[in-house]
Amino acid sequence: MEQTQAYAPFDIIIFGATGDLTARKLLPALYYRYLDKQIPPQTRIIGTARSPLTDDDFKKRIHDGLVEFVQESYQDPENIRNFLNLISYVSLNGAEADSNWPELQAKFEHNKANDIRIFYFATAPRLYGDICDNLALKKLITPTTRIILEKPIGTSLKTAEEINQRVGKHFPENNIYRIDHYLGKETVQNVIALRFANPVFERLWNSDAIDYVQITAAETVGVGKRGGYYDGAGALRDMVQNHLLQVLCMVAMDPPISLNADDLRNEKLKVLRSLKPMTEQDIKNNTVRGQYTSCVYKNEKIPGYLEDLGKDQSNTETFITLKAEINTARWGGVPFYLRTGKRLAKKVSEIIIQFKPSAWNLFATPPKANRLVIRIQPDEGVSLSLQIKDPQKTYTNLRSTSINIEFPTAFHIRYPDSYEGLLMDVVKGDPILFIRRDEVEASWRWIEPILDGWAKNLTPLTYYKAGSWGPQEALDLLDRANHVWHENMTE
Amino acid sequence: MEQTQAYAPFDIIIFGATGDLTARKLLPALYYRYLDKQIPPQTRIIGTARSPLTDDDFKKRIHDGLVEFVQESYQDPENIRNFLNLISYVSLNGAEADSNWPELQAKFEHNKANDIRIFYFATAPRLYGDICDNLALKKLITPTTRIILEKPIGTSLKTAEEINQRVGKHFPENNIYRIDHYLGKETVQNVIALRFANPVFERLWNSDAIDYVQITAAETVGVGKRGGYYDGAGALRDMVQNHLLQVLCMVAMDPPISLNADDLRNEKLKVLRSLKPMTEQDIKNNTVRGQYTSCVYKNEKIPGYLEDLGKDQSNTETFITLKAEINTARWGGVPFYLRTGKRLAKKVSEIIIQFKPSAWNLFATPPKANRLVIRIQPDEGVSLSLQIKDPQKTYTNLRSTSINIEFPTAFHIRYPDSYEGLLMDVVKGDPILFIRRDEVEASWRWIEPILDGWAKNLTPLTYYKAGSWGPQEALDLLDRANHVWHENMTE
Repeated sequence: MEQTQAYAPFDIIIFGATGDLTARKLLPALYYRYLDKQIPPQTRIIGTARSPLTDDDFKKRIHDGLVEFVQESYQDPENIRNFLNLISYVSLNGAEADSNWPELQAKFEHNKANDIRIFYFATAPRLYGDICDNLALKKLITPTTRIILEKPIGTSLKTAEEINQRVGKHFPENNIYRIDHYLGKETVQNVIALRFANPVFERLWNSDAIDYVQITAAETVGVGKRGGYYDGAGALRDMVQNHLLQVLCMVAMDPPISLNADDLRNEKLKVLRSLKPMTEQDIKNNTVRGQYTSCVYKNEKIPGYLEDLGKDQSNTETFITLKAEINTARWGGVPFYLRTGKRLAKKVSEIIIQFKPSAWNLFATPPKANRLVIRIQPDEGVSLSLQIKDPQKTYTNLRSTSINIEFPTAFHIRYPDSYEGLLMDVVKGDPILFIRRDEVEASWRWIEPILDGWAKNLTPLTYYKAGSWGPQEALDLLDRANHVWHENMTE
Repeated sequence: MEQTQAYAPFDIIIFGATGDLTARKLLPALYYRYLDKQIPPQTRIIGTARSPLTDDDFKKRIHDGLVEFVQESYQDPENIRNFLNLISYVSLNGAEADSNWPELQAKFEHNKANDIRIFYFATAPRLYGDICDNLALKKLITPTTRIILEKPIGTSLKTAEEINQRVGKHFPENNIYRIDHYLGKETVQNVIALRFANPVFERLWNSDAIDYVQITAAETVGVGKRGGYYDGAGALRDMVQNHLLQVLCMVAMDPPISLNADDLRNEKLKVLRSLKPMTEQDIKNNTVRGQYTSCVYKNEKIPGYLEDLGKDQSNTETFITLKAEINTARWGGVPFYLRTGKRLAKKVSEIIIQFKPSAWNLFATPPKANRLVIRIQPDEGVSLSLQIKDPQKTYTNLRSTSINIEFPTAFHIRYPDSYEGLLMDVVKGDPILFIRRDEVEASWRWIEPILDGWAKNLTPLTYYKAGSWGPQEALDLLDRANHVWHENMTE
């Protein structure tokens, strides 16, 4: 993200502003941008939600959020005070036409408004259509009004199409910013530079040189307070349909003709449309779904999913492995393994490019295949595994090592949170890192047969101990192709 | 090199044992191998030279050499004492048949001898033939006798052929070890592993992906005490004909069918024979020769070459740049820049693989070309320059960085001196890291027209200040092709 450019003042109105996201992510992100002088003091941040709060009540919540979620060394009382001055609150149910709209409307009367207006939808997605209708009805939409939609855009192809259609009635596509915070991650964006600014990689970026790809987003936390939502969604909708498929697009797309939003998104769309649809047999063979069960860690019991949920029974997956294939000239025959899960052994998001091993060998033992690791988090960076001469033996003996860089260490900078860059992209009006309507729908088109197959129980739900790397079936899936997960690879 | 295998005891007899090489390199190398228990106590190290020394005189010199040249933490009085017990001395002029041969012969009478016998020729190369004749005459050659020949093998194709022919009368080629200590360097040997055990590199190792190659061996020292020899030789004979061409062979060779000595050396020979012969025009355009002149550094005068030499005039080059071309399918059109010199700005030996820049560009500024740096010394290691997203700007902005490994730091080991591994290879009987007769002659065949052209002054001698990177002409040569030396590259 750009950390120096100054922007004109803008207005951002958050629907669902009393939710977790606002205090934990959105306002800390705006505060960091404020510190970097990208947000001028005429900017207005307006929270809305149904709760009857005063401005001061709301500012107090935001203040507490900043103290909790901003790095301590960035917490400056004067800056926080000045930043809080940008904030106000309107008690409003955005989904209802007869709610407290006049108070919000009043904020934009008599040339009070800034030119750029952003509505952030942090509510349940089923409300997006109603809120848009009301914004139109209340004449709050200007030609420079942009809306940001949080995931999930629907729960199926049909519901996604419905949301897109209703929102699209009031906003041109380029003013609709469907946010996917994975695209805000520095190392995900770095895939563009790594691939298209480094011919050494781009020359190798195809099925001639690459054996398989792994994209992992592993969490150590359980469902926590999100159990209600999560149990209706599951990991496939919550993580794969959006985040993991977006990362897959960045890794797999052909070079765009420019870094304009639509040129890049056209290439991502091509990838999504080239995903080989899963047959029932593919769903049986190439998908794994799991649910975590309790375990004892350091004499303490870690609850299982059902306990976290407070239910006796659930068929919802908290872990997934998919073997995806991309039917293009570049990728034919190269498996893309997607994996995500809660309560796994380690919090890590990473892309593994496993190169083909040498088909011939000169050495005492066969050389291990090269591997490029793109670490999304933590320890953002890149490493390339190499075979070198064992320094304590002769030229016929190899040793594995890697050449490596960790960006935060190398550059001595704080790596900004995804939301910082993404919010400023909306202010700037650059939708390149946001999901276009056709991308959302193409993702659902590929995901839906898997959901359907699982509903028919083609893939039985399996169980894994909290703190493990998921069910044995996830290892077996790779093992059948003689492949192996990164954490089990020998150097 | 192998640091653990134990060997059977052997006898090594050094001709020219009072010279610098013995105390500075050979005996410290054997001492380190002794510490690692690769040299059993029945091994005998016999120094010979014309000086009338006793065993104790000689051991004293060796003792002083160990104290000066072995790292202090490896100097253990008991080990040094025991190691010195392996050593004896025979005063002998190896080039004369009526010298003190009986004393040497006596050492091998009555089953005293070890099975493996090694004669190390650390004398002037013009004596190699005579010494071999005498070894034959005195019946000191057994079927398991090996000889090690120090550079230079001749001063021209004709003299090299003469030495090879005279030595070859008494020894089969595989018992003749022409030593080139550059091949003993860990990182030079590592080129074999980097290339042939890492498909990511081997796929890029050709004129499609590589723009040009630089091989630099830069010294900060002047000619020192070697002025007498050096002024008759010059840098082309002293460094390029052997070391730099050998490194070039390792970088440029096709994959050998095995890591047996002759399979590897066949491939190196193919490279030497594919070097495009230099026409007179090529010599004018593609060679630079320089000589260092005095400079003042920190208020101290650093002498020029003539002052180091104590002469008024010399036409000898202490600096060279050559642009070599290799006429093969793999390398056609890729310049190999060879550079060596004394009194340069920095002591560094390195191989630079400069990849081609991207022929297209998506970014705000054109990405810099990738570069693989193989550091031979100091800081043995490998780094690959990369373009990444500038972490403080948007996805269209690049920043240069590199992924890197320094072997000694990574592996916490002492990197052995070249001579340690090479000497033990002779004990083991593996000539892979030594120069075969046809390689020496093919090198001279390519070098000699350059020497001839310089004798005709096709390339005028230029001058450079001690402490610089050589004459301007060396920069200009690359500049004409829009190429640049590593130290002048921006990251």
